[in-house]
Order: sequence, then structure tokens, then C-alpha cells
Amino acid sequence: MSEQDIPRTDIGELGEFGLIDHLAGGFKNKRKETIKGIGDDAAVLDYGGQPVVVSTDLLIEGIHFDLMYHPLKHLGYKAVIVNLSDICAMNAIPKQVTVSIAISNRFSVEAIDELYDGIRVACEAYDIDLVGGDTTSSPSGLMISITAIGSNPMEKLAYRSGAKVGDILCVTGDLGSAYLGLQILEREKQVFLANPDMQPELSEKKYLVGRQLKPEARLEAVQYFEKSNLIPTAMIDVSDGLASDLLHICKASGVGAFVEEAQVPIHDEARMQAIEFKLDPITCALSGGEDYELLFTVDPKDLEKVRFMNSVYIIGEITPKEDGVTLHTSGGQIHPVTAQGWKHF
Amino acid sequence: MSEQDIPRTDIGELGEFGLIDHLAGGFKNKRKETIKGIGDDAAVLDYGGQPVVVSTDLLIEGIHFDLMYHPLKHLGYKAVIVNLSDICAMNAIPKQVTVSIAISNRFSVEAIDELYDGIRVACEAYDIDLVGGDTTSSPSGLMISITAIGSNPMEKLAYRSGAKVGDILCVTGDLGSAYLGLQILEREKQVFLANPDMQPELSEKKYLVGRQLKPEARLEAVQYFEKSNLIPTAMIDVSDGLASDLLHICKASGVGAFVEEAQVPIHDEARMQAIEFKLDPITCALSGGEDYELLFTVDPKDLEKVRFMNSVYIIGEITPKEDGVTLHTSGGQIHPVTAQGWKHF
Repeated sequence: MSEQDIPRTDIGELGEFGLIDHLAGGFKNKRKETIKGIGDDAAVLDYGGQPVVVSTDLLIEGIHFDLMYHPLKHLGYKAVIVNLSDICAMNAIPKQVTVSIAISNRFSVEAIDELYDGIRVACEAYDIDLVGGDTTSSPSGLMISITAIGSNPMEKLAYRSGAKVGDILCVTGDLGSAYLGLQILEREKQVFLANPDMQPELSEKKYLVGRQLKPEARLEAVQYFEKSNLIPTAMIDVSDGLASDLLHICKASGVGAFVEEAQVPIHDEARMQAIEFKLDPITCALSGGEDYELLFTVDPKDLEKVRFMNSVYIIGEITPKEDGVTLHTSGGQIHPVTAQGWKHF
Repeated sequence: MSEQDIPRTDIGELGEFGLIDHLAGGFKNKRKETIKGIGDDAAVLDYGGQPVVVSTDLLIEGIHFDLMYHPLKHLGYKAVIVNLSDICAMNAIPKQVTVSIAISNRFSVEAIDELYDGIRVACEAYDIDLVGGDTTSSPSGLMISITAIGSNPMEKLAYRSGAKVGDILCVTGDLGSAYLGLQILEREKQVFLANPDMQPELSEKKYLVGRQLKPEARLEAVQYFEKSNLIPTAMIDVSDGLASDLLHICKASGVGAFVEEAQVPIHDEARMQAIEFKLDPITCALSGGEDYELLFTVDPKDLEKVRFMNSVYIIGEITPKEDGVTLHTSGGQIHPVTAQGWKHF
């Protein structure tokens, strides 16, 4: 076969989720120790004691962060947080991380120290041990690969696949702020590039910018579930946006859902900022991503327990699959919810 | 402080091991579940059942591999193997991996399929489940980050730190071949770049090139240890070269060692190839790296068990720390063994 005959399919044609499904299709789990493999926020392994919950993420300069506005210390913090968030999304307690970095020689030891300062602050804040990693050079740019490990008794783990018709759909915190924080940082970068004497005006945008630069993992929700003896029927962290992540739950659980637009928590500053950018606030919440809030479903019998949780909002309900996944707008209309995924390619 | 005052230390000044020590210095393990953190081939965690042994490695295009001569399928295979090797080096059985990749859009879906074919072949050969990962785009090049997880009862695990004076120093397989394989591939690449009509002459170099492109993890040694009730007092995999890796054992164990040059296993083809390249074969074995053989120490009482192992060579002995780490040359001289580490920066 000559080179011209080799078929060439652009990765972009499959998209993120299509590519993952395509690649995962060739693998079957055979080990008895593997309880859950690809297809959730984390894998679940059974080594005879408490289940081992494992998740991993890659952060690439120029794709996931821009060092013009992501200070290295914040970046180190965030890199740990996004992984802890995946463990929390399984209703497990994160306990250890490994951190691998590839760095070009344009980074000084002092710069790497900044990055690791942020990693250490995150480890201390969440009581996490850094137990390993790899350090190597890169031809250009900075890459961070983190694996987080945690645990909780098997019967308490929450998968994407457990949502049942009639379950209540809930989310922690607020949505869309991290995306709007990113838009502000991008705007200020363009202003700076056009005129390096201009100083960024971020003091009034602290909340939104902070949500982008220094997200938190919702460990307190996992702790609350423990204390109140509540186990979500399904859970995922909102990393790709409410729409994508709700669709993941619905697909894995074989159900539909509706979301009440009026109930989706959007911070006042996010709402105002969206309007300033001529964006629809609900679109930012649905498709923005990087909020690292927890989206979860509970049995209606647990409704009262959810009502007592701090910063938790009931935003909808799980429905039969044939009803689809829809948004009930404040104006009384019903729109299908569609995924954005990432479009990096 | 103005920017000029910010101290700038080049990463190269610290070197690989210096940088790792520097970065790890800021972290203390506090969790009772963390038995061993940074400083060995893998971390060891105790979640109440069998210990969980975790290792992670980053492979970066242009640093660890060159796609001109590392076919994607071989690369996928090798990426898994180097991580399994770390688990074997703890005298543990590897059981799962997570695989994260970052790829630029110059790669087609078919190319990524090749990579994953190699990953799958390695998983099948070693009975490993692929349980997770991350897939993202990169601004340029290919990066692979793999985390391997395995286990063995706590009392069977072998650390770098357990070597005692009088222990016998052993190594599996042969050393230096992977490095010489790489030199052949580099030479053929230069020939090809100078004249693209020239076809590489690799058919006579299959063994050496194969050792570079398709290494294996020494799982059969771990299985033999199990069967023969032998627990190495210390173990490490030879990824950086015999010199570096022996120094790791000696430093962690607080001992010295001597290596008998005449006993170091070097394949005939490696010996001939080294001479063709005007290199000293023992230097290739000491500093070449990427052999992924196991270097281990055993109590003298276990000498007979070691003698019965296939492809295991007794190359020296552990000595008091003050004797240093030395090579007894075939010519009767004593040379200090020094580390090379990597010099990517």
C-alpha cells in the first residue's frame, strides 16, 4: 500500500468524546481487581481493602493555560484541584497525588519552585500527600500530568450511571463564573498586547477571575454526604460545562433530564459580566466549563437532606430517556441540551 | 523587587536528580495510607488490603522518542513497558495502567490507532487493564503520560533502601544494547536525512534495535522470586544505566558496592557494535540506560536460588559505605562509578 492509500481521518472529525470512545473500544478489562475502568470521573480498583479510586489529567501550556495570565503558583494549585475534583465526583476522599512535569529550559528553578509552591498549598489545604511523579525536559512549553488517588467504602461511591427517573438533579456552588473569568483575562491580555503600558483592570473582577485561576474541589460536599448519610445516585464534576456533564450522566444512566433555567445558580457578577460581553448567562453556565462544581442526583426521599446543604441548588429532575435532556427556559420554552465538549483540535 | 533582581537558576545547574530532590524537599507525607512516597521506583499505599504500588512516567516527543524511527505501535508498547518495569522493580505485579496523551492535529485518527494498538498489545502480553486516562490536544508534538498500578503483599515488596553489606549484586538480561540500538537508529536517520534514497540497513541489527524499540519488563523475574520464595533485599530497574541505578540503591541503602566488569552481561552484538562506534562496551552498559532490566541485591543465603534463575548474572557485592561504589575492571584496576543522569536540559 503506497502512502497515498493510507486513510487519514482528522481527529477533529471525532471530537473529544468520540475519540475517547473510539480508543477505549479496543480494550476489555479482565482483572478481578478492576471494578470500574474507563467511562467515569475515575477508575475504581479493589485491592482487598477500601476501593482505590484513581483519576488522571493532563494540562498543556497553550491549550489549558496561558502563562501570561495563569501565574505559576495558581497553576500548580489548579492542576491539583482539577484532579481532586474528579475523586470527589466519585464521592470519594482524595488522599494522594503524583505530579509529573515536562519543562523547557526557558523555565528557571525559581519558576518551577513557584509551580510547586502552588502544588504544596493545594496538598496542604486538602490533606493530600505528594507520593511520586516524573520530571523531564520538553522541547517547548510546560506540561503537567497529575494522577489523584482516593477512597471511600465501595457502597458509598457514586458513578455517572446510577441516576433513576424521578431523581432530583442538584449542583453545588455556581456555574459559568470560571468561563467568564477566562474571558476577562483574555480581554486584558489583548489590551496588554496592543499596548504594554496598559495595566490590567482586574480589581473589580476578583470573584470571576479567582474562579478561573484558583478553583476549589467540593470536598466539603463529600464530607457532608458522609455526615448526613446521603449517597448521591449519580455524580460528576462540572469540568466541561453543565450541558456536557449532564449529558454524560444521562447517557451513562440511560435516562433523560430537565433543567429549570431559573434554578441554575449563576453568580450576580457572572450575570453582569455575561451581559457586558453580550453573552447569555445561561449559555455560559451550560457550556462554559471549569467550574469544578459537583452535579449530582439524589433519590427524592433524600430531598430534605439536600435542602440543608450549603450552596447546593436543585436545578431539575431525571426523566425517562425518551423525554431527552432539555432546558426549561425562564420564558417557558423547552430547548434540547447539546454538548459542546472540547474543540481544541 | 524589579524583574532584574529576581534570581534565575538554570534547571541544568541542578540536573535531574538534584531537581527532584529540590522539589521533593518541600513535601512531607502525613497520611497513614502513605507507606512510601517519592524516592523509589514507585509509591506504596496502604488502603487496608494488598498494598497499592503506583508509578508514573512522562514520554515526550523530541526528548524520549523520535517518530522518524520509533514507529507509533512500538512507542505505545514501550510507553506501557517502562511503567510496568517500575512496578516490577518494587517486586510487585503490575495490574492496571492509565494512559494520557496529548497530540497535535498533525496526527490522524489512524496514527493514534497505531499508538493504541501497541498499548493494547502490551496490556495483553502482561495481563494489564487500561482503566483510565486523558486525551487532549497539544500545540505541537506527542506526549504520553502513563501511571501503572500493581500490588504484592507488603512483606514481599523490594525497596531501593534494603541492601546490606555482603549482599550479592545481580542483574537480569544484558546491558547497553538499548543504547547501542538507539545509536544505530540515529546513524541511519542521519544517513536518510543526507540522502532520502538510502534505505536504512537494520536487518543485521535486529537484536540491538529491538532492545531500543521494543523493550520488555522483567515480570518473569518477579514471578520467579515468588515461586522460589526469594525476596530481593533491594531492587531498581535499569532505566538510566547501571551506574546511575546502582548509585540510587547505594545512596538509599547507605552502602557501597563493587561491580566486576568481567561479570557485567553485555550481548555479543552490543560488544561488536560498541567497538564499531569506537565506544567502550562497559561504558555503554554503565551509562547507556533504557535496558529495563532489574538490578537487585540478595542475601548471600539466597545465592543458590539466584544461580537457578534464567538470565540472571551476579555482577558484584554490597560493601560498606566508606568503600564507595567502584568498578573492578578486567585489567585489575578500581574505578569509582559516577552517575550520568539525564542531561536533557
